[in-house]
Amino acid sequence: MVRFENDYAEGAHERILKRLVETNEEQTPGYGMDEHCETARAYIRRACESEEADVHFLVGGTQTNTTVIASILRPYQGVIAAISGHIAIHETGAIEDTGHKVLTVPSEDGKIQAEQVKELCDAHWNDGGPEHLVQPGMVYISQPTENGTTYSKAELEELSKVCRELGLPLFIDGARLGYGLVSEGSDLSLADIARLSDVFYIGGTKIGALFGEAVVIINEDLKKDFRYFIKQRGGLLAKGRLLGIQFETLFEDGLYFEMSHHAVEMAMNIREAFIEKGFSLRYDSKTNQQFPILPNDVLEKLSKTYSFSFWEHIGDSHSVVRFCTSWATKKENVKQLIEDIKALEMEYASV
Amino acid sequence: MVRFENDYAEGAHERILKRLVETNEEQTPGYGMDEHCETARAYIRRACESEEADVHFLVGGTQTNTTVIASILRPYQGVIAAISGHIAIHETGAIEDTGHKVLTVPSEDGKIQAEQVKELCDAHWNDGGPEHLVQPGMVYISQPTENGTTYSKAELEELSKVCRELGLPLFIDGARLGYGLVSEGSDLSLADIARLSDVFYIGGTKIGALFGEAVVIINEDLKKDFRYFIKQRGGLLAKGRLLGIQFETLFEDGLYFEMSHHAVEMAMNIREAFIEKGFSLRYDSKTNQQFPILPNDVLEKLSKTYSFSFWEHIGDSHSVVRFCTSWATKKENVKQLIEDIKALEMEYASV
Amino acid sequence: MVRFENDYAEGAHERILKRLVETNEEQTPGYGMDEHCETARAYIRRACESEEADVHFLVGGTQTNTTVIASILRPYQGVIAAISGHIAIHETGAIEDTGHKVLTVPSEDGKIQAEQVKELCDAHWNDGGPEHLVQPGMVYISQPTENGTTYSKAELEELSKVCRELGLPLFIDGARLGYGLVSEGSDLSLADIARLSDVFYIGGTKIGALFGEAVVIINEDLKKDFRYFIKQRGGLLAKGRLLGIQFETLFEDGLYFEMSHHAVEMAMNIREAFIEKGFSLRYDSKTNQQFPILPNDVLEKLSKTYSFSFWEHIGDSHSVVRFCTSWATKKENVKQLIEDIKALEMEYASV
Amino acid sequence: MVRFENDYAEGAHERILKRLVETNEEQTPGYGMDEHCETARAYIRRACESEEADVHFLVGGTQTNTTVIASILRPYQGVIAAISGHIAIHETGAIEDTGHKVLTVPSEDGKIQAEQVKELCDAHWNDGGPEHLVQPGMVYISQPTENGTTYSKAELEELSKVCRELGLPLFIDGARLGYGLVSEGSDLSLADIARLSDVFYIGGTKIGALFGEAVVIINEDLKKDFRYFIKQRGGLLAKGRLLGIQFETLFEDGLYFEMSHHAVEMAMNIREAFIEKGFSLRYDSKTNQQFPILPNDVLEKLSKTYSFSFWEHIGDSHSVVRFCTSWATKKENVKQLIEDIKALEMEYASV
Repeated sequence: MVRFENDYAEGAHERILKRLVETNEEQTPGYGMDEHCETARAYIRRACESEEADVHFLVGGTQTNTTVIASILRPYQGVIAAISGHIAIHETGAIEDTGHKVLTVPSEDGKIQAEQVKELCDAHWNDGGPEHLVQPGMVYISQPTENGTTYSKAELEELSKVCRELGLPLFIDGARLGYGLVSEGSDLSLADIARLSDVFYIGGTKIGALFGEAVVIINEDLKKDFRYFIKQRGGLLAKGRLLGIQFETLFEDGLYFEMSHHAVEMAMNIREAFIEKGFSLRYDSKTNQQFPILPNDVLEKLSKTYSFSFWEHIGDSHSVVRFCTSWATKKENVKQLIEDIKALEMEYASV
Repeated sequence: MVRFENDYAEGAHERILKRLVETNEEQTPGYGMDEHCETARAYIRRACESEEADVHFLVGGTQTNTTVIASILRPYQGVIAAISGHIAIHETGAIEDTGHKVLTVPSEDGKIQAEQVKELCDAHWNDGGPEHLVQPGMVYISQPTENGTTYSKAELEELSKVCRELGLPLFIDGARLGYGLVSEGSDLSLADIARLSDVFYIGGTKIGALFGEAVVIINEDLKKDFRYFIKQRGGLLAKGRLLGIQFETLFEDGLYFEMSHHAVEMAMNIREAFIEKGFSLRYDSKTNQQFPILPNDVLEKLSKTYSFSFWEHIGDSHSVVRFCTSWATKKENVKQLIEDIKALEMEYASV
Repeated sequence: MVRFENDYAEGAHERILKRLVETNEEQTPGYGMDEHCETARAYIRRACESEEADVHFLVGGTQTNTTVIASILRPYQGVIAAISGHIAIHETGAIEDTGHKVLTVPSEDGKIQAEQVKELCDAHWNDGGPEHLVQPGMVYISQPTENGTTYSKAELEELSKVCRELGLPLFIDGARLGYGLVSEGSDLSLADIARLSDVFYIGGTKIGALFGEAVVIINEDLKKDFRYFIKQRGGLLAKGRLLGIQFETLFEDGLYFEMSHHAVEMAMNIREAFIEKGFSLRYDSKTNQQFPILPNDVLEKLSKTYSFSFWEHIGDSHSVVRFCTSWATKKENVKQLIEDIKALEMEYASV
Repeated sequence: MVRFENDYAEGAHERILKRLVETNEEQTPGYGMDEHCETARAYIRRACESEEADVHFLVGGTQTNTTVIASILRPYQGVIAAISGHIAIHETGAIEDTGHKVLTVPSEDGKIQAEQVKELCDAHWNDGGPEHLVQPGMVYISQPTENGTTYSKAELEELSKVCRELGLPLFIDGARLGYGLVSEGSDLSLADIARLSDVFYIGGTKIGALFGEAVVIINEDLKKDFRYFIKQRGGLLAKGRLLGIQFETLFEDGLYFEMSHHAVEMAMNIREAFIEKGFSLRYDSKTNQQFPILPNDVLEKLSKTYSFSFWEHIGDSHSVVRFCTSWATKKENVKQLIEDIKALEMEYASV
């Protein structure tokens, strides 16, 4: 079975493992106070062109989203998110568990528009008794989104502008940030992400690390006492240097972007193969996740050799599925998949 | 200004005030352990034909909803509710504040259907990794709904059946329960409500009491330690006898239903007047809330004499508004309103 | 049975009931937006000599403590309180339920000293890894305390000074504030309370109202969005005017203090009787709660005619009990109690 | 600088790193559903002689304590713990953050006695209004304790018996479980731990793993839906196999115990050296943490070469400090430390 079901099926890039082995016997202080973490923070600040940024390392995405959001909102506030946002669906209500409502807005492609944020806030403040409603307190977006789509620089600038006008911190979930930054047509740099958001994180788990997410806090008001939040929510890794060593490796010379490039290239090849065969794509993703709409017999056939994720039914005859590539995806596997796609004998026409 | 804006604009029925005055110098134990509470509990059990029910008295609706729901759900569970449910909108995220997601289902009229509950649960349990999703843990409905509509006996039986099959406690928010029970065409008795739900409350605040909601727990599993929940959430009134005295008065000889009848009669008169004048109604309510769709100039004209609530815009020219009656609504005020409706000179046609 | 077991055994002062009856048919907006609440707020600001104060009305003490504390603390902060503080013991963990630890300091008499606050904070900030500990975020005291004792002006000034130096808001639980303000030897006025605290509440439930606590927010930083907190925590009474009417009556011409005087006078008479008979007192209370140490046979004898609260055992032969007076305590009952104390034939010597 | 300040200063045992490298390119399902986790679970069940146990892997200790405790308690319940318990002090109020009070009992050595649990519960249930108090809902102990002391089999059996009589689940924090199990004089096996508790965890972070704690749930009632809790609290590691691989290595052939033995041997050597030199020990620890009471000049001298943790002041002249050994402690470092202790010229006598 060749796995395309997610982007965390393997361990870590070999350079990361090598560094873990090399540094294994070093004695360091715990909880992220070691030299490796310091160096990694410096590399990340440099990559973000944000010398004043605070950088913290956490283990996983749900933990990171929960910690950041709980650190920003007041108890009666909620976080605005796309209805398809990870925090709205796939985190077992972790945000609600911290006492906050996720204020969802509709979205076809996983993105939310500046205008939607403005309308939601206007509706709140124009209500006769706004204190009976959850007050919007921040905005959460994913770049790239859970559907593989990306915000353009113009879109992000507009969203950022509206957020700042409304006094809403903008938090970018970058679980797959690298895959978005290097995607075809992307006009956003890491520095842009830092400039246009208040806080974001750079995902390591899905891009070459064993685990780890680097939270970058740009907005001065959000920096205070963040380590208390991490510790209280169980995210302060005792051997914090494991995170430092990994991000040091990822950001010392561009490995993070190099791996992202590879994954996106592989995904685009798969995308092309599906399109050439006449299949439609559910979302116009230029990143490492591809969502072809497949007749169910095709789906069944491919699933004998490949694992991928079921996404949703389209009528009785078709389904959307997700193929993920990653830094670890092997060229020969993609090549084989493409050949198998080409070789499909189609009984049903695509949607 | 004659107020139709809500059903809590006045104090309490005069008999309740009289009893509070008569009993004022009695010395009683606190926190609902007094004789008046005991008597009121007995009256309510009798009215519900549920001799084994536990009855607790709380002060207000949000408090009651929060306390009941927090007492039922496990931390990773959510409560299924209509998207228009009071807990989903008008309680400042009080449910989320207790750590739980409100799992909303679409609704045009404020009701939810048994089938919707079943589908939501099927979707959860058929997911590849249900533990990444909030688990449905109970169902919340309002009778009558926030839109004035009511469940029929058949609908409630079907909903109750599905909930029991799925192991989901069914909680009925009865903030306006009396208005529903006496509404035209209603085939549900208080005993039916008790029989078909696991827990519900009988609203006093909106039906003749100064304040107070009587929680009736039918399901044996939900009874344990409920007083701890009330106390922890700040709902255990020191002078608990105030609640006992009020519900004693409401249920000793049918005053609760008598007052409900009056309010519904007044509302139906207003409804008729709007219909006769050619206005449409947003919801088919037979209870104390009426939702006419009015041209904006009519709205403006009426608002010079009457207060009522804005509900929503319909295009640029019309609005839905809410007229509420209550146990305290004066016949002469309703009569005057009806005459003013009849006398309207219409510039716009109704929608 | 004559009840001295608590200070909430009766209803309300007759003037309050009279006003509730007189205003019963008025139609007012809900949720505290009515004229009675406005007037009551003005009276309270005047009494506090704090024209800029925000005044909010809630129903009960646990609700008030929880709402105020949850509105002040950040998630990783705790509230400093005496080990005997109401929030530390008798509120079913309501503060913890909002996510916050109660950081208790030892106390013999119910009070905490400025020095204790300073030491606790020093210990926190001097710890090698303070983010592993709950950060002190505010201070809670009761005036009078749960033991009937009171802070002097000098003590409160010192505590207030330390709190301000440390950036810790000082919150005074005034469930029995009136009884403290009028107590023998008290040198604190309501204006002093306002001047020296950041937020406090004036208890109505235990001093003549049916229910109700008036939160007075002095510190500008704590005012923002407080109504959201009240609503979210279920404390925004629909018929808010009930609170307004009661506090209007209590503060229009000094009724609050007049009733407090009566209760304290009654308590001091009881205190004298116990002392004269040779009994010791557990706490040196000059307020409406008295804590005599009684031989168990005396306790048993008195309990045939009077109800009072058991407080704690002292060895095998004696117990501390609590006698409470209130605005409603009848002179003839106190006279009878005093005579019964005088008439006791003592088998055991007092401790 | 030679570090004895904690037991998480290095990476992982070389065999663990080797396995991570070997398995790095394997493609596995995420979230703990892989073969390595399955195998590790089987090894642990075997080591616990509990074939029916559920085994889950989490990343760190605070996360594990919070997740387990939140999964057991009802909202109005608290967890009984020693006043020195890790959850009571060093987790930034993580337990309170989940809404629960830590009900602390006094302890001189870090252990709690069966009798203390019984007394606390009796006091609760004999209170006139127990619903005003936090209800005891479970018991938390650490084995070994934060002070390095250990429960004997007799003590644990008595505690377990009382907990079962009272219906309180017993949870054992085993962050350093190995060090306790192999300590001199220990009469408890892993199977005993499983037999006498309801749920416990086997710490990996401090005993040879990069990170990881294995939760073992014995009590059938506590097993339900535990994965929801892990996910909701951010503890479901995407690359769950990292935990599986580590625990597989630790438990396939006794490596866990072998490493524990080494650490304890090293600690006992240090202990002997201090005792021989005439120093007292604050706690009678036979495990990997040693707490000598040192004159401050000795402390200062040793701190030039060795890092260790300050614990507490004893008067002006002495301090308690903590020396930790671990699986990674080098014999030559211990030897050097012992020589340096022997060579101390003492100005002060020990306490």
